[in-house]
Amino acid sequence: MSTISSLTGDLAQVRESLARRLQGVDPSDLEAQRRAYDAYSENDPMPEMSTQSEIDLGGVSCLGLLPKGCSGDHVILWAHGGGFAMGSSRSHKGLASQVAVAAKVAAILPDYRLAPEHRHPAALEDIVLAYGAILAEGVHANRVILAGDSAGGGLVVAAAMKLKEQGVAMPAGMILLSPWVDLANRGWSHTAKAQRDPFLTTSVLNTRAKQYGGEANANLSILDADLRGLPPAFIQTGEAEILMSDSTVLAERLGAAGVPLTLEIWPEMFHVFQARYPMLAQSRQAIQRLGQWAAAHLAQ
Amino acid sequence: MSTISSLTGDLAQVRESLARRLQGVDPSDLEAQRRAYDAYSENDPMPEMSTQSEIDLGGVSCLGLLPKGCSGDHVILWAHGGGFAMGSSRSHKGLASQVAVAAKVAAILPDYRLAPEHRHPAALEDIVLAYGAILAEGVHANRVILAGDSAGGGLVVAAAMKLKEQGVAMPAGMILLSPWVDLANRGWSHTAKAQRDPFLTTSVLNTRAKQYGGEANANLSILDADLRGLPPAFIQTGEAEILMSDSTVLAERLGAAGVPLTLEIWPEMFHVFQARYPMLAQSRQAIQRLGQWAAAHLAQ
Repeated sequence: MSTISSLTGDLAQVRESLARRLQGVDPSDLEAQRRAYDAYSENDPMPEMSTQSEIDLGGVSCLGLLPKGCSGDHVILWAHGGGFAMGSSRSHKGLASQVAVAAKVAAILPDYRLAPEHRHPAALEDIVLAYGAILAEGVHANRVILAGDSAGGGLVVAAAMKLKEQGVAMPAGMILLSPWVDLANRGWSHTAKAQRDPFLTTSVLNTRAKQYGGEANANLSILDADLRGLPPAFIQTGEAEILMSDSTVLAERLGAAGVPLTLEIWPEMFHVFQARYPMLAQSRQAIQRLGQWAAAHLAQ
Repeated sequence: MSTISSLTGDLAQVRESLARRLQGVDPSDLEAQRRAYDAYSENDPMPEMSTQSEIDLGGVSCLGLLPKGCSGDHVILWAHGGGFAMGSSRSHKGLASQVAVAAKVAAILPDYRLAPEHRHPAALEDIVLAYGAILAEGVHANRVILAGDSAGGGLVVAAAMKLKEQGVAMPAGMILLSPWVDLANRGWSHTAKAQRDPFLTTSVLNTRAKQYGGEANANLSILDADLRGLPPAFIQTGEAEILMSDSTVLAERLGAAGVPLTLEIWPEMFHVFQARYPMLAQSRQAIQRLGQWAAAHLAQ
């Protein structure tokens, strides 16, 4: 990481691009917002694929990606971000496939049901269903990593808790990029990092939390839950984002609960900065670290 | 880390051994405690050495260690633990040399002045003097890692702050094993982890803080200081220690201040568990991680 600072030439441009991502889109037109959100990243470069196909896993439509030279016996199941209301396999196939190729495994992206049409626990149920279907197809749990960014990171932790409750075998690990885990948005970085965050606002997150959870949003927080027995976790967060404290608090709670825990905090980086791998060296370096971690934790 | 749980056979034995480390030693006889503390680990296995010699760095007596096959142009300067009142190059030459050989570099252990004979800032001054003398000998700062465990971890952060204040070039990184940074002992894990910690007690730490800082101990905390501009940091802590929250709070503060930050929390592990490398696989795995991190952050 000692060479990072020499490679940040594009950072201001990336921040501005992200801030303009949904500009000019009618805030009341969620379908238009979803299209703009997908369009922003759906053409980002992908590794060459052996297979890319729509698959049904437990009734959930998923995108399956097997980059060339990777093992189809090992899977990263990716819960995309987008505030529970946006995002899809299209918006996140680039990021997921880059992490998959770094780990030399397949990626599967469920198009879980979105809010506000589908409230909690619809999205969570879909992730759990897809995971169960992967196991049912004969893939051992210790060959599966659950990964998620932002709202998807929160879904991953919630899904692992649900699997524990159901007695289902735990995955080999959890990869969490800027996870959004406190839907009541109580973290200190909501105020402390408000000026440094290029595009997230607490106001929009409050709206998304309400769309997903209804009036009971605070009750969806996983930070007060019993996190014992969850699989090893690798959290990456940006220093310049209002959700930074969600990562540090989650790291502390997971670690205290006896979960093997690695946390990385990346200076100047923003929410889910890994997704900007076409433009930023830090994103590519972080993706390599995710791939190495996944490979080290997946059973052979 | 997925194989760790199969290698914990000796953990109960190690915990018991540590709990008995100073047993039978008169608590009022600090010299006897120091001898027992050193004796506990001074015969732990060391890598084969090219050079092992007493050296004077800025007036501070140090032990210099160059393991075979390692680069004498790169240095880990190790501030040992022992509550500011115990510990020496003898007690810590094993741990420091194992990390050095994992990084393929030299290790230098200052025998800094101990409390209560020498109060704050004596120990801090000695670390800063030794660092300055290493630079004066022609070693570039980007080829030096500052490392410390427990009280030594706190000394490392305090030394980096002092170097920043003095305008001295920053080292390439900071390695912090279970750093003790809040001498007022306010962290939540002092109570939450009291039953799980095999040997640390808040009562003894309060005594050590007073011996080192006098009545002004709380003022020595670095947690409220401006941490911007410090070099990349790698913190490892145990889940079963009352100082766990010192690590998580420090990680959060460093990360928020824009310091590239990696935190690892190791389940079931105790204070400075890396030092028990002769007995525990986790210790050896953690040392490998430290060595890799150091090698990746040191300039060629």
